[in-house]
Amino acid sequence: MRREDLETPALTVDLDVLEDNIARMQAYADEHRLKLRPHIKTHKIPAIAHRQVLAGAVGITCQKLGEAEVMVAAGLRDIFISYNIVGQTKLERLARLARQARMRVAVDSLTTVRGLADYLGREGVEVGVVVELESTHHRCGVTTAADAVTLARAIADAPALRYEGVMIYPSNRASAPFIEEAVEALRAAGLLPQVVSGGGTPEAPFAHEVPYVNEVRPGTYVYNDWSYCSMGVCTPAQCALNVIATVVSAPTADRVIIDGGSKTFTNDGQFPMGHICEYPDAQIPQMSEEHGFVDVSRCARKPRIGERLTVIPNHACATSNLHDRVYGLRGNRLEVVWEIQARGKVQ
Amino acid sequence: MRREDLETPALTVDLDVLEDNIARMQAYADEHRLKLRPHIKTHKIPAIAHRQVLAGAVGITCQKLGEAEVMVAAGLRDIFISYNIVGQTKLERLARLARQARMRVAVDSLTTVRGLADYLGREGVEVGVVVELESTHHRCGVTTAADAVTLARAIADAPALRYEGVMIYPSNRASAPFIEEAVEALRAAGLLPQVVSGGGTPEAPFAHEVPYVNEVRPGTYVYNDWSYCSMGVCTPAQCALNVIATVVSAPTADRVIIDGGSKTFTNDGQFPMGHICEYPDAQIPQMSEEHGFVDVSRCARKPRIGERLTVIPNHACATSNLHDRVYGLRGNRLEVVWEIQARGKVQ
Repeated sequence: MRREDLETPALTVDLDVLEDNIARMQAYADEHRLKLRPHIKTHKIPAIAHRQVLAGAVGITCQKLGEAEVMVAAGLRDIFISYNIVGQTKLERLARLARQARMRVAVDSLTTVRGLADYLGREGVEVGVVVELESTHHRCGVTTAADAVTLARAIADAPALRYEGVMIYPSNRASAPFIEEAVEALRAAGLLPQVVSGGGTPEAPFAHEVPYVNEVRPGTYVYNDWSYCSMGVCTPAQCALNVIATVVSAPTADRVIIDGGSKTFTNDGQFPMGHICEYPDAQIPQMSEEHGFVDVSRCARKPRIGERLTVIPNHACATSNLHDRVYGLRGNRLEVVWEIQARGKVQ
Repeated sequence: MRREDLETPALTVDLDVLEDNIARMQAYADEHRLKLRPHIKTHKIPAIAHRQVLAGAVGITCQKLGEAEVMVAAGLRDIFISYNIVGQTKLERLARLARQARMRVAVDSLTTVRGLADYLGREGVEVGVVVELESTHHRCGVTTAADAVTLARAIADAPALRYEGVMIYPSNRASAPFIEEAVEALRAAGLLPQVVSGGGTPEAPFAHEVPYVNEVRPGTYVYNDWSYCSMGVCTPAQCALNVIATVVSAPTADRVIIDGGSKTFTNDGQFPMGHICEYPDAQIPQMSEEHGFVDVSRCARKPRIGERLTVIPNHACATSNLHDRVYGLRGNRLEVVWEIQARGKVQ
């Protein structure tokens, strides 16, 4: 089967580009003696995670237990869930995973630490724990170095918890002063972090410039996307993920409609909502659920009904999360069909 | 099992509210002698489609062949795919469906009409066809009454195609003049539409005021959502779909983080990104993929880590499309678990 035989809309990955992306990030990490622990939220596919590990990654990062369960079942053995694990059933699931693989989790409260310490202590399993530091995103994370020390000590004091260090997302330059302050306070308290884990694809190329960071968790780099092209983080040629769509309507000279909308691409990101490779002057101003609006007013040649277009989506991670499978293409030949096994694993 | 036993984030539907929503829309349609043909894009669940038909709907509306395949396999027998069916494999699939159920499709170009006429003619199956009229949304649809007549004549002239009339989405008051003009031109040409099909939940209560409209295709009404509450289309008590989420972090006095983000809710809609029933003064300013940010600065009492919150999502159709199943609750008791069988059927 070839690219032109795939029914549309079809989610495809260019395997050459994928492999280059994996190799390039690994080379960067190796050059700067950073441990690479890719975030699988972008692809959610065990086969790609295994390729990342084979290339040199020390393990993987997941956001949810459900993702980690898929990855452990597929043979991944070293997993960081960069998330607060809260509640009895989630602790049970974590304990099961910890019996099968080396697990690490993040915490940003004593409530979470105590839940882990009590449950895992009773179960007799050990899990690595890092303290999440607040970043410029103002999401999770302790907001003071003193709180980082308090949590680190509580972790170190709990027999079932293996104190490993700290994490932050993203690890940009603006967060560097707080990372430094927290690491130095931890060192002074006798709680020197072994792991200082940073994250984010846009931030990855500068990770070696952020003091103390010794592990990076980029996710999107494996596919890249149009939003990162727009920011200058990558080039269109480095975008591995595409949606092949068909023109189904051309109501006016300036507008065509493709057979994929927000249920194929999401509504994430800024205008334009992706990039059409064959018509770089076309723009996608908006999407409804199953219709992609395309403004072709600036195109000298206009797409016709039935024509197939190759679209670079705005947000790779969210787009692949909408699809059950992705078609891996080597050139125009279909080489592999991957089920997106961890799609929808929000629990 | 009860509501409090569901692992979070959990997509739930309040069955009493669902049944009221179905009954209320059917009563409106019956009162005004409108045929109700609900759009299943919102729920994507055959069992709910059957409930809509049992309540009096003449059939259902789908947007994609893949959705229709799920529904036909589950015993639904009268399906309108309100979409241009383009390309050989899609025509093959349509022909298969037409051998099992009464099928109707929409067209807005001669290209689409000819594809249908040629393929279905060779296969010897008949499909109903309506002409799509452009609305104020400027999506698909013919833009002149003359084009509507041209397409209607091409449909009527094709032995495999059963000319049925016209459709528009949405069928708001601003589109009424064009609907009138098109219907009158078709009548003058001897192509009187039997079906004048309108759509849209916000527009549904006024469908009887739009001249000639005799069928309505609302979708969202079955669940309703926060965006429609904000527009005054429904009340919070009429919202059947919820996400139960758990507070996993409380980094500052003004902010908590819940365990669902844009991969649980989508990023669709305006700020706020949904509504928290237990904390009506809380607001959801943004979401990242697995984190929901909650501003609790205006809450007298603040949610604690581990607490479960009931969230009305901004966009029900897109939210349910992210999940594999929905938990049907009667009060707090789990009555049914529905697989969202047509989720992800973008082809």
